[in-house]
Amino acid sequence: MDLFVTFLGTAASVPTAGRSTSATLISRGGVRWLVDCGEGAQRQLLRSGIGLIDLDAIFLTHLHADHYLGLPGLLKSYTLREREAPLGVFGPPGLEQLLRTLRPLIGRLSFDLEIAEASAGLLLEESGSRVEAFPTAHSIPSIGIALVEATRPGEFDVDAACGLGVPEGPLFGRLQRGEMVTTPAGDTVAPAQVLGPARPSRSVVLSGDTLPCEMTANAARGATLLVHEATFLDEDRERAAETQHSTAGQAAELAAEAGVGLLALTHLSSRVSPRDAEQEAAARFSAVVVPRDFEQLELPYPERGEPILTDLRARSRREPVPPEGAATVPDE
Amino acid sequence: MDLFVTFLGTAASVPTAGRSTSATLISRGGVRWLVDCGEGAQRQLLRSGIGLIDLDAIFLTHLHADHYLGLPGLLKSYTLREREAPLGVFGPPGLEQLLRTLRPLIGRLSFDLEIAEASAGLLLEESGSRVEAFPTAHSIPSIGIALVEATRPGEFDVDAACGLGVPEGPLFGRLQRGEMVTTPAGDTVAPAQVLGPARPSRSVVLSGDTLPCEMTANAARGATLLVHEATFLDEDRERAAETQHSTAGQAAELAAEAGVGLLALTHLSSRVSPRDAEQEAAARFSAVVVPRDFEQLELPYPERGEPILTDLRARSRREPVPPEGAATVPDE
Repeated sequence: MDLFVTFLGTAASVPTAGRSTSATLISRGGVRWLVDCGEGAQRQLLRSGIGLIDLDAIFLTHLHADHYLGLPGLLKSYTLREREAPLGVFGPPGLEQLLRTLRPLIGRLSFDLEIAEASAGLLLEESGSRVEAFPTAHSIPSIGIALVEATRPGEFDVDAACGLGVPEGPLFGRLQRGEMVTTPAGDTVAPAQVLGPARPSRSVVLSGDTLPCEMTANAARGATLLVHEATFLDEDRERAAETQHSTAGQAAELAAEAGVGLLALTHLSSRVSPRDAEQEAAARFSAVVVPRDFEQLELPYPERGEPILTDLRARSRREPVPPEGAATVPDE
Repeated sequence: MDLFVTFLGTAASVPTAGRSTSATLISRGGVRWLVDCGEGAQRQLLRSGIGLIDLDAIFLTHLHADHYLGLPGLLKSYTLREREAPLGVFGPPGLEQLLRTLRPLIGRLSFDLEIAEASAGLLLEESGSRVEAFPTAHSIPSIGIALVEATRPGEFDVDAACGLGVPEGPLFGRLQRGEMVTTPAGDTVAPAQVLGPARPSRSVVLSGDTLPCEMTANAARGATLLVHEATFLDEDRERAAETQHSTAGQAAELAAEAGVGLLALTHLSSRVSPRDAEQEAAARFSAVVVPRDFEQLELPYPERGEPILTDLRARSRREPVPPEGAATVPDE
C-alpha cells in the first residue's frame, strides 16, 4: 500500500514567501489525512497539484492560530462543492470550543463535522493502520500524531504450500489471512508452515509543536519517519525552551535516541535557514531532510527501498496544468 | 506622486492554484491600503516581493469569508513583529460584530485596531486624497471603495512670474500653493496669473462584490481605473443576478457608461477563463485588463502616460530574493 507524506506548510508562526504555515498531508492508499491546517492550507493543496481533495480527517496538534486558521476556508470550500461525507476533526482539549468560535465564520456546512478531543490514545483505525495521539510538551495542550501500520504477515511460500498438498485457490488466501486449512487429502496445514517471518510495517510520527520530550521519543521508537519541529537552532536553545519549542539539534538527538529511519524537520522559524537546520541536525543524526513546501516523501515498505523525496512542483511543471475555467466549484 | 494598484487575490469564493481570494493593494506615495483581505493575503504580499508591509488601513467591501479570512493571520503577524502604529479597519455595518467574533482567534494585539463601520461617505483623507465608500448591491451589506485625489494646481509658469517681477525663491512656492504675493516692487500677483489650468487628478474605484449598479457607475464617473468584479460570463447572467454578482460583459457596459480610463476585472469564478472574460468585456469596452495575481498597475498622472501593467513575479525573478533566515519576525 502506498504511503506519502506531503509537506504543504513548513513555516513557524508566520508564513514566508516560500513557506506556508503548518500543514502536512498523509496519504495511505486512498485515505488522506491532514495534520494541522494553517492559513492557506487549501490553496497549498491546489498549488501542489494534488488539488482540493476530500480529506478523510484533520488532526490539529494544538490550537495556536498558525495551525488552524486554514480550517474555516477549507470547510467553506467543501460546502461550496457540496461535500456530503462527514469529516472528522481531532485535536487536544479546547477543540470543541474553538470550533464553536469558528462557527460564525464557517456558516452552514453541507456535511457533518465530527469533532473529537483527545490527549492521548487511539483516534481512528483504517485499513490496517491506527492513528494515535500522544501528549507533547508545548505552551498549551498539545498532541503528537502517530500513524502505525499493523504488522504485515510474512511472505507466502507457494512451493511449501503445494508441497503440503494445498491446492492453488481460496485455501491460499485463507492461509495468508492466518487461518488453518484442511487439504483435499485431509491434512491440516497451519499458516506458520507456509508463511515467512512477519514483515516490518511502517509508522509515521509527527511531533507538532513541542519541547524535545520523552513522549515523542517513545512514540517514535523505530518509526519509519519522524516529522519533528525545529523552530530554532541550538544557538537559540534558551528561546526554544522559553517558548516550548525545539532546536534542530535537539530534534536530531531525539531521532537518534528513538532510532527512527528518517527525520524530517519542519516548522522552521523564518530566521532559520533550512541549510543551517540540516547541518546542525546532520551532525547528530545523518538521516535527516528539511523539506520545502510541496516536497513529498514516499515511504515504501522497508524491503522495497528507501524513502524518496520528490518536489511536486517540479513534477507539475512537467505535467499539463488544468486550464483556468476547468474547476467545478460553484461561487458565492 | 506614485500610484499603484496591486492585485494580490483575484479569485471568487474559493482560491485556485493561480489565484488567491480577494485582496487588492493600493499604494500612493508612502501610504498603503488593502481592499479586502481574503485567506492568505499576508502570504500574497510576501510572495509578491512587496513583503509584509505595515498597511495604513484595511477596507472590507463586505463580510463574506472570502474577503476577510486573511485578517486574523495578518493581525497576528503584525503583533509578532511588535507593530505599534494603530490600524484602521473600515467596512460595512456588521464589521464590529465580526471583529468581536474574530477576537479569540486574533488574541492580544501590540497595536490599536480602529474599527469604523460605514455605508457611504468619507472614510479618510490622506496627502491630498480622499477615500470614500459608496453603497453597492450585494446579498449582504456591501460597499465600494473610491480613492479620489484632489485637483492638482496648474503648471507654474516661471517666465510669467519673472515677467511680473516675482523673484525666484519662497514667493514661487507661495504662488504654487495658491497664495497671493507682493513683489519687491510692491505689485500684487495672484496665482491665476502664473498657474496654468488645474490639472486632472486620478481616481481608483473598486466595486467589491455587487450587481452592476448605478452607485458604482456614479462613483466611477471618469475614474482613472475601475476595478470591477466579474464573477461570471454573460452566459451565466441569471446565476449572476441570483447571487448578486456581475458578468464581465455587465462590468464593461458599466465602465463604458461611466467613461473610465481603464477597467480591470477581478473576482473571477474558477470556472471563468480570464481570456473569455477579457474577450467578452472588450467587445463592449476596449480599455480592459484581467490582471493575474501579482500583477501591478502603475497609474501615472494623465499627462505622463498610460497605465502600465507589470508582473511583480517576473520582476522578482530578475532581482535577488532575500535568503531564508533573513526575516526579523519573532516566533510563537
